[in-house]
Amino acid sequence: MQEFNLDSFIRKIPDFPKKGILFYDITSILAKPEAFLYCIESMVDIYTDKEIDAVAAIEARGFLFAAPFAARMGIPLLPIRKKGKLPGITLSKKYDLEYAQAEIEVHQEDVPAGKRVLLVDDLIATGGTLNAARALLNAGGAIVPEIFGVLGLPFLNYEKVLSPTPVTTLINYHGE
Amino acid sequence: MQEFNLDSFIRKIPDFPKKGILFYDITSILAKPEAFLYCIESMVDIYTDKEIDAVAAIEARGFLFAAPFAARMGIPLLPIRKKGKLPGITLSKKYDLEYAQAEIEVHQEDVPAGKRVLLVDDLIATGGTLNAARALLNAGGAIVPEIFGVLGLPFLNYEKVLSPTPVTTLINYHGE
Repeated sequence: MQEFNLDSFIRKIPDFPKKGILFYDITSILAKPEAFLYCIESMVDIYTDKEIDAVAAIEARGFLFAAPFAARMGIPLLPIRKKGKLPGITLSKKYDLEYAQAEIEVHQEDVPAGKRVLLVDDLIATGGTLNAARALLNAGGAIVPEIFGVLGLPFLNYEKVLSPTPVTTLINYHGE
Repeated sequence: MQEFNLDSFIRKIPDFPKKGILFYDITSILAKPEAFLYCIESMVDIYTDKEIDAVAAIEARGFLFAAPFAARMGIPLLPIRKKGKLPGITLSKKYDLEYAQAEIEVHQEDVPAGKRVLLVDDLIATGGTLNAARALLNAGGAIVPEIFGVLGLPFLNYEKVLSPTPVTTLINYHGE
């Protein structure tokens, strides 16, 4: 893959969602086809030889990258959603946020037991949601050999939370 | 496009989200690459010659179809989200649901003024959200020449609400 300045396509929003936080917004990537296609092609390059049977994506921004990847690879796409959104029989997993609890779900019958499922989100921060998603997929009998994010904030220590699963990102930002 | 039994890939869930409603679930399409690719290829076939400059998608399930379509077409993808999710400067639009009000937003600087934007969701029911989304795009100076949904429920009269914009769906279901 040639040199590509992905950083120049990421919108930085100060004080969102609260004062003192610099928010890295990936939706600006979508507005520029060359940047969006760079991300999708990079995912294809990275995972083509890694025997990925399916891809699971975290609602909602994870869908934006996982869906084109699934279409390109011709593999099943498994949406992981907030509680109450999936109408069928689900597996669910509660997890802690900074000041609250969250719960995510997956359709039980769509989890491919014994298969290798790549877990995808747009941005990896603390890794809490991805950690819960991995547990959910494992509970359904799937293997999670790799985790992918377009953008990583490694200073929030997601690598420790998600260990031993290898995490790949296209760009990382560092705290001050 | 050859004959394809899309209906057989759509999960039907009785009494969701409430008693008496039969819910048509498109996430089961995603689990079957042949069905998912049928949807994406159909979208490409339908819109290739229609001078579509960009695609706008309604959160969250609209992302699942619009994102691969945008990647295939090499055109910008504009996410339309519930209020408070987009970090940049937004245009927003309130609209009425059956028993409540909702509000959707789009990043103002990403709306391509003067351009033809295809509006996409997974399922078209009353058309209320798509109607608000069209108003939002128009407020940003974009043209909405066409609206697409994978699945339509025409007995809920979305065609009247969305008139005069042509609406295309891959499959329709009818009330009892």
